[in-house]
Amino acid sequence: MTKITLLINCNDQSGIIAAVTNFLANNNGNIVYIDQHVDREQDIFFMRLESEFEQFNMMAFKANFKSVLAEKFKMKWRIYDTEDLPNMAIFVSKYDHCLYDILGRYNSGELHVNIPFIISNHNTLKPIADSFNIPFYHIPVTKDTKEEAETKQLELLKKHHVNFIVLARYMQIVSNRLIDVYPNKIINIHHSFLPAFVGAKPYHSAYKRGVKIIGATSHYVTEALDAGPIIEQDVERVSHTHAIEDLIAKGRDLEKIVLANAIKLHLKRKVMVFNNKTVIFS
Amino acid sequence: MTKITLLINCNDQSGIIAAVTNFLANNNGNIVYIDQHVDREQDIFFMRLESEFEQFNMMAFKANFKSVLAEKFKMKWRIYDTEDLPNMAIFVSKYDHCLYDILGRYNSGELHVNIPFIISNHNTLKPIADSFNIPFYHIPVTKDTKEEAETKQLELLKKHHVNFIVLARYMQIVSNRLIDVYPNKIINIHHSFLPAFVGAKPYHSAYKRGVKIIGATSHYVTEALDAGPIIEQDVERVSHTHAIEDLIAKGRDLEKIVLANAIKLHLKRKVMVFNNKTVIFS
Amino acid sequence: MTKITLLINCNDQSGIIAAVTNFLANNNGNIVYIDQHVDREQDIFFMRLESEFEQFNMMAFKANFKSVLAEKFKMKWRIYDTEDLPNMAIFVSKYDHCLYDILGRYNSGELHVNIPFIISNHNTLKPIADSFNIPFYHIPVTKDTKEEAETKQLELLKKHHVNFIVLARYMQIVSNRLIDVYPNKIINIHHSFLPAFVGAKPYHSAYKRGVKIIGATSHYVTEALDAGPIIEQDVERVSHTHAIEDLIAKGRDLEKIVLANAIKLHLKRKVMVFNNKTVIFS
Amino acid sequence: MTKITLLINCNDQSGIIAAVTNFLANNNGNIVYIDQHVDREQDIFFMRLESEFEQFNMMAFKANFKSVLAEKFKMKWRIYDTEDLPNMAIFVSKYDHCLYDILGRYNSGELHVNIPFIISNHNTLKPIADSFNIPFYHIPVTKDTKEEAETKQLELLKKHHVNFIVLARYMQIVSNRLIDVYPNKIINIHHSFLPAFVGAKPYHSAYKRGVKIIGATSHYVTEALDAGPIIEQDVERVSHTHAIEDLIAKGRDLEKIVLANAIKLHLKRKVMVFNNKTVIFS
Repeated sequence: MTKITLLINCNDQSGIIAAVTNFLANNNGNIVYIDQHVDREQDIFFMRLESEFEQFNMMAFKANFKSVLAEKFKMKWRIYDTEDLPNMAIFVSKYDHCLYDILGRYNSGELHVNIPFIISNHNTLKPIADSFNIPFYHIPVTKDTKEEAETKQLELLKKHHVNFIVLARYMQIVSNRLIDVYPNKIINIHHSFLPAFVGAKPYHSAYKRGVKIIGATSHYVTEALDAGPIIEQDVERVSHTHAIEDLIAKGRDLEKIVLANAIKLHLKRKVMVFNNKTVIFS
Repeated sequence: MTKITLLINCNDQSGIIAAVTNFLANNNGNIVYIDQHVDREQDIFFMRLESEFEQFNMMAFKANFKSVLAEKFKMKWRIYDTEDLPNMAIFVSKYDHCLYDILGRYNSGELHVNIPFIISNHNTLKPIADSFNIPFYHIPVTKDTKEEAETKQLELLKKHHVNFIVLARYMQIVSNRLIDVYPNKIINIHHSFLPAFVGAKPYHSAYKRGVKIIGATSHYVTEALDAGPIIEQDVERVSHTHAIEDLIAKGRDLEKIVLANAIKLHLKRKVMVFNNKTVIFS
Repeated sequence: MTKITLLINCNDQSGIIAAVTNFLANNNGNIVYIDQHVDREQDIFFMRLESEFEQFNMMAFKANFKSVLAEKFKMKWRIYDTEDLPNMAIFVSKYDHCLYDILGRYNSGELHVNIPFIISNHNTLKPIADSFNIPFYHIPVTKDTKEEAETKQLELLKKHHVNFIVLARYMQIVSNRLIDVYPNKIINIHHSFLPAFVGAKPYHSAYKRGVKIIGATSHYVTEALDAGPIIEQDVERVSHTHAIEDLIAKGRDLEKIVLANAIKLHLKRKVMVFNNKTVIFS
Repeated sequence: MTKITLLINCNDQSGIIAAVTNFLANNNGNIVYIDQHVDREQDIFFMRLESEFEQFNMMAFKANFKSVLAEKFKMKWRIYDTEDLPNMAIFVSKYDHCLYDILGRYNSGELHVNIPFIISNHNTLKPIADSFNIPFYHIPVTKDTKEEAETKQLELLKKHHVNFIVLARYMQIVSNRLIDVYPNKIINIHHSFLPAFVGAKPYHSAYKRGVKIIGATSHYVTEALDAGPIIEQDVERVSHTHAIEDLIAKGRDLEKIVLANAIKLHLKRKVMVFNNKTVIFS
């Protein structure tokens, strides 16, 4: 039994749902999950579907899907073998809380993923990587070495067939060289409730503004700083009694949970991106 | 153009989704919304679908649906003309906050519903009903007159073709005579986070137990007290500084919002009930 | 028995708490509530105190407090008779949800306040004011009449000894002429999670940015648009399934609750403002 | 400079606050934090105070406090040197998420505490204890060996001067022998929103009841199962799409955060217990 996950988007048109479900029935697929969304502002149709097959040939199915459906409706589409484990690279700097959290979940089987390696611009977190038996590459980044560092990063990513990257409080700006290779495949955690407090030191800005709620946001990295499609956000109540270091401590808990939830949504192929916004299927 | 909403549940079987979408395509329906859920514990399939038709005959469609699909898959099913406004009766006692809230939303066009009348066992809230121009029936309930009161209620409900009832802090236990006529069609608001604090005076119990969060729950009324299928819940943080009257005041805000949300879900036919639990479609 | 509420702020210094509690003991006051906060960034001390007296003369007490304590510690201070009902003016435009909510709470005794009148630049909400028997003044505002309108507003505010103003979705920018007379005494509700989405149409901006959580913020009005000291904020989870009108509807519920909570905090004299931030005592 | 934390409770009486602040002033203490609460139902006064002294003798101060204040007002009281690090023992079974979380926070300096050892009835989590260099004692518990096991536990607790115990998902019922030695000093995490779903398998019960929100509760252990004073609670929204294993996974995140928050409140001596409820100072 093979199970596939199918993601489609295209201009909204009459008869799409019936056409897709029909196609699957004709190919002996049993649909076990279907969800769809229409963006009424832009007239865009989104669909996520899971289907089971007793016999399945991915190459043939894709060719067939393309010629029968995708071209007709001008679809953008992706098909995954649901059981395939993607390769996820983790980039970190010196903060350990998100790394501990991800590796703890990975260790307990909560994340269906391979982690081929961790990259860091510092050596600080190597002991954590070691204790979980994950290869750790220390690639320092300075103004002068940034390009060279990226070349090394890209080599490692390619060599290990990395499917997506998680920036687990990686305190460096990722340049277009990586973004172009991993469009909507680099997940960042920003320690504010975006679009409030873009950029550096958001907890200091939140403290200064006197907000009563702080937050964290996980988003795909795009060229524009902290402006990529939002995957997940969460917030926590604070008060005047909290000093900046209290906001930072509370924020750590938010960051961990929000980033982990974003990773899980991405792994389950529940996120579609269009026009810098996400559709998150349930 | 006619738009219908279709709700189905049955034992989970291969090919249901394709069969339903096919049926609609064959009947010239354009599916504009589809969502489904499978309860894996009990192997029950649930589906909600919206479809548009240029020409539509409800009687013929229902007959056709029944013979072609429903009998084959042993479905339970309901079909609504999406534009039909249901008739909603409101039962109240003396508390005014939920009534004000519902009528304010009704007045501003937020609720797509008719409100043929309000019933109360007290005359207290008649001025509010008057100010919104809704007929108000004062039907006192005592131990001795309970049966007689219910007979009057049932007559009014029947006469006005009431589709469902909202108990907006109606402080009386509704008996089987009404529940049998309105199964999963009587929406209650209970002022606690069920199943905690069933029964009377939940805020007093919450205060005594020293909980740090209070809640409200909207559910369909069944024979068992406060044990019907939960539609919606929400909570609010409290502390030792809150006296019972503070909990009651905070609770009023929870009750209003939770009840309004439950009514809106019911009106949009987004709620399905099975085995005393709800499926809430998005 | 007279009960007073005392609010103090000054530079942080050794011995302030003891000095204040001593002063009250020497004046036969029984302290029933004391709370304090020190802003460690700026070394500012804040205190809120409630005290009961069997015999009390406000004028004499204030004079005494000033000469014995306030001058010594260079305090800013305010003293209220706790039972005094302040006069609150409400400004509205056309949206009714916040007005309904405030008047409903006022009617049920939840707000300890007088409401001498409602001002609006439209006549739309007059029937609501009438149904609650609150005087309603229609003062249209156009570019040309803005100054004249403000003069009328100021006359009414002065004549009725208004202590503070609530902008219950008043869609006009309040100018310095009012702000100067009511510093930190004009409460606004902004329909976003500030500092995100300052200015007009925040729900449209939130929709466009694809945020997963929306919010509302109540703050004191200052010269800078939507940048005054934040009193209260709350948020609600949203998803891609919500159209702009859904955000607006959900936002209405947030706005009502957040504004009501801010009003209640202000009425209980629990809010102190310093350097564009609030201390909110519990 | 010595800093102390003082916790007091007694029957509410006139003049207590002034008496305490006076006492501290007379003893050359500079009060840097004061907060108080009166339980109006039971007329009980609670106070938390932090004071700094240039010269300080704990023994003398306590004797003085007792004779001058405590006996007069019939106070229950505790005084701590604020800088003292308490000794915290951790009890675990097989679940690792709370242990990882606590040790991660401990390691990063977030918890001001000593952890002399971890006790477990299984050997499963020894590698985690090892990786953090914390002694790990495997003390199996069966029906027959329960008393013997407790004797060993009590010996270790005594030998290491343990001040309080954290049950980090310790799947055994702690008997009175331990509770009597550690009254309101054993912190448990229960994986439900108490008082809903007392006892075993709360996520299964929550699933069966169809609740829309799940929670976790941290409380002090008393004789009555899951009925001790609540320190902290938090909740998370769920839906029909979540299977039991999803509730369990979401619950793990709640459990970690709620338990960590409870530990932090206890460490800062911000929790007072009276009549099976807590006062949590800010």
